[in-house]
Amino acid sequence: MHEFEVWATRARTLAVRVAGADHSMRLANGGWWKATVENAGPGADYAFILDDGDPLPDPRSPYQPSGVHSPSRLVDRDAFQWTDAAWQARPLSSAIIYELHVGTFTATGTFAGVIERLDYLRDLGATHVELMPVNQFSGERGWGYDGVDLFAPHRAYGAPDDLKRLVNACHAKGLAILLDVVYNHFGPEGNYLARFGPYFTAAYNTPWGPAVNLDHRDSREVRRLFIDNAVHWLRDYHFDGLRLDAIHEYYDRSAITFLENLSSEIDALEASLGRRLVLIAESDLNDPRVVTCREAGGLGIDAQWSDDFHHALHSVLTGETGGYYKDFGSLRQLAAALQQGYVYAGEYSTYRGRVHGRRDPRVSGHSLLGYAQNHDQVGNRAMGDRLGHIVNPGRQRIAAALVFTAPFVPMLFQGEEFGASSPFQYFTDHQDHDLAKSVSEGRRNEFAAFGWNPQQVPDPQDPATFARSKLCWKEVESEPHASLLAWYRTLIAFRRSQPSLTDGRLDRVQVNFDERARWLVMRRGAVEVACNFAPDRQALPISRPAKNVIASESGWHARPGLIELPADSLAILY
Amino acid sequence: MHEFEVWATRARTLAVRVAGADHSMRLANGGWWKATVENAGPGADYAFILDDGDPLPDPRSPYQPSGVHSPSRLVDRDAFQWTDAAWQARPLSSAIIYELHVGTFTATGTFAGVIERLDYLRDLGATHVELMPVNQFSGERGWGYDGVDLFAPHRAYGAPDDLKRLVNACHAKGLAILLDVVYNHFGPEGNYLARFGPYFTAAYNTPWGPAVNLDHRDSREVRRLFIDNAVHWLRDYHFDGLRLDAIHEYYDRSAITFLENLSSEIDALEASLGRRLVLIAESDLNDPRVVTCREAGGLGIDAQWSDDFHHALHSVLTGETGGYYKDFGSLRQLAAALQQGYVYAGEYSTYRGRVHGRRDPRVSGHSLLGYAQNHDQVGNRAMGDRLGHIVNPGRQRIAAALVFTAPFVPMLFQGEEFGASSPFQYFTDHQDHDLAKSVSEGRRNEFAAFGWNPQQVPDPQDPATFARSKLCWKEVESEPHASLLAWYRTLIAFRRSQPSLTDGRLDRVQVNFDERARWLVMRRGAVEVACNFAPDRQALPISRPAKNVIASESGWHARPGLIELPADSLAILY
Repeated sequence: MHEFEVWATRARTLAVRVAGADHSMRLANGGWWKATVENAGPGADYAFILDDGDPLPDPRSPYQPSGVHSPSRLVDRDAFQWTDAAWQARPLSSAIIYELHVGTFTATGTFAGVIERLDYLRDLGATHVELMPVNQFSGERGWGYDGVDLFAPHRAYGAPDDLKRLVNACHAKGLAILLDVVYNHFGPEGNYLARFGPYFTAAYNTPWGPAVNLDHRDSREVRRLFIDNAVHWLRDYHFDGLRLDAIHEYYDRSAITFLENLSSEIDALEASLGRRLVLIAESDLNDPRVVTCREAGGLGIDAQWSDDFHHALHSVLTGETGGYYKDFGSLRQLAAALQQGYVYAGEYSTYRGRVHGRRDPRVSGHSLLGYAQNHDQVGNRAMGDRLGHIVNPGRQRIAAALVFTAPFVPMLFQGEEFGASSPFQYFTDHQDHDLAKSVSEGRRNEFAAFGWNPQQVPDPQDPATFARSKLCWKEVESEPHASLLAWYRTLIAFRRSQPSLTDGRLDRVQVNFDERARWLVMRRGAVEVACNFAPDRQALPISRPAKNVIASESGWHARPGLIELPADSLAILY
Repeated sequence: MHEFEVWATRARTLAVRVAGADHSMRLANGGWWKATVENAGPGADYAFILDDGDPLPDPRSPYQPSGVHSPSRLVDRDAFQWTDAAWQARPLSSAIIYELHVGTFTATGTFAGVIERLDYLRDLGATHVELMPVNQFSGERGWGYDGVDLFAPHRAYGAPDDLKRLVNACHAKGLAILLDVVYNHFGPEGNYLARFGPYFTAAYNTPWGPAVNLDHRDSREVRRLFIDNAVHWLRDYHFDGLRLDAIHEYYDRSAITFLENLSSEIDALEASLGRRLVLIAESDLNDPRVVTCREAGGLGIDAQWSDDFHHALHSVLTGETGGYYKDFGSLRQLAAALQQGYVYAGEYSTYRGRVHGRRDPRVSGHSLLGYAQNHDQVGNRAMGDRLGHIVNPGRQRIAAALVFTAPFVPMLFQGEEFGASSPFQYFTDHQDHDLAKSVSEGRRNEFAAFGWNPQQVPDPQDPATFARSKLCWKEVESEPHASLLAWYRTLIAFRRSQPSLTDGRLDRVQVNFDERARWLVMRRGAVEVACNFAPDRQALPISRPAKNVIASESGWHARPGLIELPADSLAILY
């Protein structure tokens, strides 16, 4: 016996189809329809029939074993045997986050595949695994941001219990695990939500079309879908936190916004579960209120990704000035990122053509994630090339060292730590022919506009683009990968051993730089980091004699008040 | 000699036409074009020629003597002889605001006409005059919310110096004067802004079409237009404050929003001018951050209109339950309005179909305007009928007494105080035939949908609709108008004499009510207000014996702990 329920304000009649039989549903309160069906239980497939139309999957389907257009399947929520009762995640302030994409992280591209690599991640020194979105999207291959069934694990990665097995295994290894969730839009294929109710509003035009309805009529139920989804992953799947995709594409002018709603509900869940839960936002707003506690007028999100630090670092290392890098490129900006988090904090941005961001000295480094690479910064390049593919090994090492000595919560992207040769390209597997074609052409045209040869831009729909993006794990045993991996291990271990480095107070960060000579020295308590970005050896001023030095290149030489560094190299003094 | 300048990022060439001669302009910084023209000075007419097109009026035109489609005219900003050097407006906390529409307030419908009535307003006890928008719109007649030339006084009301004369006269009479400004949209006729630059963005769809561009590319200059306009009225025209129309139709997701920008610029202007300036918002957000100071994370607006108090009071008095009154109607809600300002402060609103508003115990009554009538609440009714046209005289008096004893800043709408027989109907004078037709038909259809006979709905374009809305000042000398006016005078004088009534602390307001028996008693310090909304005489509990009583009807009778009141009457005990 199972009680089916679905919110459908746009249906005049509703039935649930189970094993070929239709059971009519009754309209209960607030647009919710219900029907109790005997002989329906875990494993049963079902679909909803609105107004005698085609069968539609459940907007809250727990599993779509045959894809986004097919019936949903009931699962036994309580069957999995958890062994993590005593688990507690460490605080974000001491985290090392490792972002990965299930489909390309291993050869098998499954949840089970990830489990096999957990020892490696633990040995690397990572504390938190972050999965790119794993909920059901159309086709087999994709980054995951085109999901449509928010509650169903993507069938190509495994069944619901396979995902639980991964979470449980992480906890058994002492690793926390975070999940990327997308509440700002739904994928273009298999999105049947608007047939059920006003999940979207035409009041706002987003890059994906009408916005998700967070502040118009019936938005309470739309918000409920997302909040229940967050609870689903955190409570039922034991995730330790969520990464919220692009909150700048939430359109919401309510006095109490969805994000604040969500953060207070998750705080309540944390209290009721008795274990630490975190919310991390991707935000392009440079608005400190996102990461300010609710009591102080903020939204109560724990942390956000810091693209400004990435862009400042990337543009200094690569010299790139196209697109959003137009706004960056100076050591002054890198210093600003290190000392205040946002580089644009009320300043005019040339790239945006407007004033951007807001200054707030209360922002802590613990509420900002710092990274030299992530799936977007790699994958949104025409060729999906990693930093190591475009800068020399010296600069690659400087990047890593700055990430792990910066006042932010460090994050790295799968394969970064061993300088993977595989790119991370944009891949899709849309089933609709026209959509597939327009995505392929759109990608080509987008980069042709930037001067790329359209023939060279990888076709997202081509299975080879996906295959090319998979990590080659045998690389870790050979050079230059093994040495780079050793450098990352050294840096991560160093960070975790030095209290100065996990101090989140940005106003304690001291930075000295010479824009023309291309050097920068950062001091954080007992640790001093000297970076030579110049193509020549030069001497950098340091504040005091160091007992120990970790250098990215040999050939450095310390003198009183100075350290001489080879070109494109860095030394950590402590 | 005059230096013309205009911001026009969409022009490839630009010239200014003065006295039949075109002077080409040079592109200076940031999209600004400039040209110095000899022999151009105050009184000269000019227009801009973009890309050899038709001559267009200046987006910042100081005067449009021939209407919205015609050349702009230079005016001498410094010619007017001000006599208000010592003027200081009293604080809003002790204000009595009188809202008026220049075109219908007097027979002449001009700024000069208003001057003739200032003694009357002062004798009534008003402290602040608030003008509905006076900037140039298309045609002769209109409420003013379809303005297109933000800096130019509407020519039908008078010339720029006539408006200055009105402001100066107010100050001479000890009256402050506020101006309603519309920054959320431009009128449908004569709006040439998009020809000059990206003043609008398609990212948001407002009731009037694409939103004003407050947060996209080049929004800095768009914001500058509005901020300079605010400065123009406050500094150059000596207004004491602005009423910002419908800020819920500002679409702005910046970390530092336009409103916060504006409030900090006006604070700086206040400091530099050395006299009090206020910003009052019309807000449908029920978001306390609007009226919270910037230091505490708010937008720094001084006060907002309180529609919740209006709706709670109106629905109790009239029993109306249509439209937004669906959300109101109980004494409990009226009590909530009196004790917390917003009735909807995080609750579900049936009318809106969503959760609405936010609770904040820090909100002061001084930051909320309380009224029983305003231009919208009267004029947006099919017939533009005033409260006095739909409730009996007893209830009309209760409404007034509650407004002037409530913890809010009281506001009244022209003619309310003498129960004007004239309605305030929706009138327009669009010149474009199709637009005029669609406005006339739109109005008819809008109310036909609510069951009105379309033939009875006044035609906005008909000059008679405008004429009908003019006040008949001779009414004040006859009954029942004179008695009602005396009641208002008594109430206003009483409010201004009782410190208890100007206490803005909402948590000090005590309210006792009986929903079924239809009575409500409010206590504010030394003053107790007993209201009998029932159709029968009844006894209401009071907290202590009163020395003095101001009653709306004779026939009341005080007993220990009780006051007996006739049907539909009120008594103020102190």
